[in-house]
Amino acid sequence: MVFATDTAVEPQTDESYSATIQDGWDVVGNANGGYLLAIAARAMAAASGQPHPVALNAHYLSPGRPGPVTIVPDVVKTGRRFTTVRANMRNDSKELVTLLGSFGDVGALEGPMRIDAEPPELPAPEDCVRIDHHPSGFPPAMMGKIELRLHPEDAGFAVGKPSGQPLFRGWFRLLDNEPIDAFALLLAVDAFPPTVFNANLPVSWAPTLELTTHIRGLPEPGWLRCRFSTRFISGGLMEEDGDIWDASGRLVAQSRQLALTPRG
Amino acid sequence: MVFATDTAVEPQTDESYSATIQDGWDVVGNANGGYLLAIAARAMAAASGQPHPVALNAHYLSPGRPGPVTIVPDVVKTGRRFTTVRANMRNDSKELVTLLGSFGDVGALEGPMRIDAEPPELPAPEDCVRIDHHPSGFPPAMMGKIELRLHPEDAGFAVGKPSGQPLFRGWFRLLDNEPIDAFALLLAVDAFPPTVFNANLPVSWAPTLELTTHIRGLPEPGWLRCRFSTRFISGGLMEEDGDIWDASGRLVAQSRQLALTPRG
Repeated sequence: MVFATDTAVEPQTDESYSATIQDGWDVVGNANGGYLLAIAARAMAAASGQPHPVALNAHYLSPGRPGPVTIVPDVVKTGRRFTTVRANMRNDSKELVTLLGSFGDVGALEGPMRIDAEPPELPAPEDCVRIDHHPSGFPPAMMGKIELRLHPEDAGFAVGKPSGQPLFRGWFRLLDNEPIDAFALLLAVDAFPPTVFNANLPVSWAPTLELTTHIRGLPEPGWLRCRFSTRFISGGLMEEDGDIWDASGRLVAQSRQLALTPRG
Repeated sequence: MVFATDTAVEPQTDESYSATIQDGWDVVGNANGGYLLAIAARAMAAASGQPHPVALNAHYLSPGRPGPVTIVPDVVKTGRRFTTVRANMRNDSKELVTLLGSFGDVGALEGPMRIDAEPPELPAPEDCVRIDHHPSGFPPAMMGKIELRLHPEDAGFAVGKPSGQPLFRGWFRLLDNEPIDAFALLLAVDAFPPTVFNANLPVSWAPTLELTTHIRGLPEPGWLRCRFSTRFISGGLMEEDGDIWDASGRLVAQSRQLALTPRG
């Protein structure tokens, strides 16, 4: 239960929450954005009294290094079905992430159904390309904390052969097949390499400015089937859209992030 | 300059901003979400000292009726390129909207370009279907404050003939061709009918829970070319994705909202 342990939060008497950015969740020294999101969302959910994030926005302010952090949630409105909470996560010297979210009980809502999309076709996990961490920092340390398997057509970037399409498809699960809850979905939406790495452009990193996640269902046990794609790289920015399906073929999360695409 | 006047904000000595929800921007009595967004964003931009919203999130808490409102912005971080601000908009009795955004100078960033999408093909504005307000409330009053022209294939819903596809394509501009700034783009992203109205489902309204907008460029003068679509209506929720291009064929805004889809 590495993920649950490494994202645990502890309530403090002043209504803030303490947590620790654990070692090994970083990309060249800075904690992964989805990992920080999961920690912050646990504190926000606790403050809201609701079990799940439904729509969660995060703006990334400073890189997070391993060590203690404090999350300060502030309940904006408690409604019948949703409670809206804003929060800041900071360490002893600066603000790391600021967030806003509506929390509720995913699955308690009802309505008609219509789906106009298919999960991505993927070879079986054992026929995909495992991305594991490497002491050089590429692939980054955090890949040692999860299991990520890329579609072979999208995996060449790691050996200098980008596909030419700003697209990553693949499987995601936690180590030891730890069950995936709504908070682990927040990790999954930022766990894949930036799509721009497959685009044959002079962009070597793509820091996230803003990331929004909608939790649309709670996953059945098993691998998540993931697709991240980008249509517009322009004006120094790109959007990256994520769709995540569970093992039963049901959409469980959508994400969109706005990332910077500095030349270099 | 109806839009500029009707979304104006006034700084108060306590660092809040006052504004007025003007008559006529409503959908059956409640102010349009994009209109509220534009008002709030003006106050947030003023507080940030930056000219434009770049990524802006809003969670809708209560319907907004015409009358005075107060916007209370709170600068979370002032950075070199972006300033991050959270804000609440309230009237004399309740919170209406809570927001979080990163503000900066759209167009000041640089990076490589790659576009993998085309603007929607539309008949000329004069060959599209003008949606104007009607005293009955359908189409709603706010349609009298803007010019909206729908693709004829998407316009049948208004006379009981939905297309069957959760899709709206059309042209948008302000009255008297008032110039469209970044704040008017915030109006545009919520100005079209809910996509579900074209889906042949028993859903008669789709209140917005959360709406995120990315401003990707400042539009050239002229009509905006807009496309709103939905892929997943499930579990009482749907996402609605918007892409907005300017008259020169450049993407200027993207939006995604999470809306409720109650049966009825």
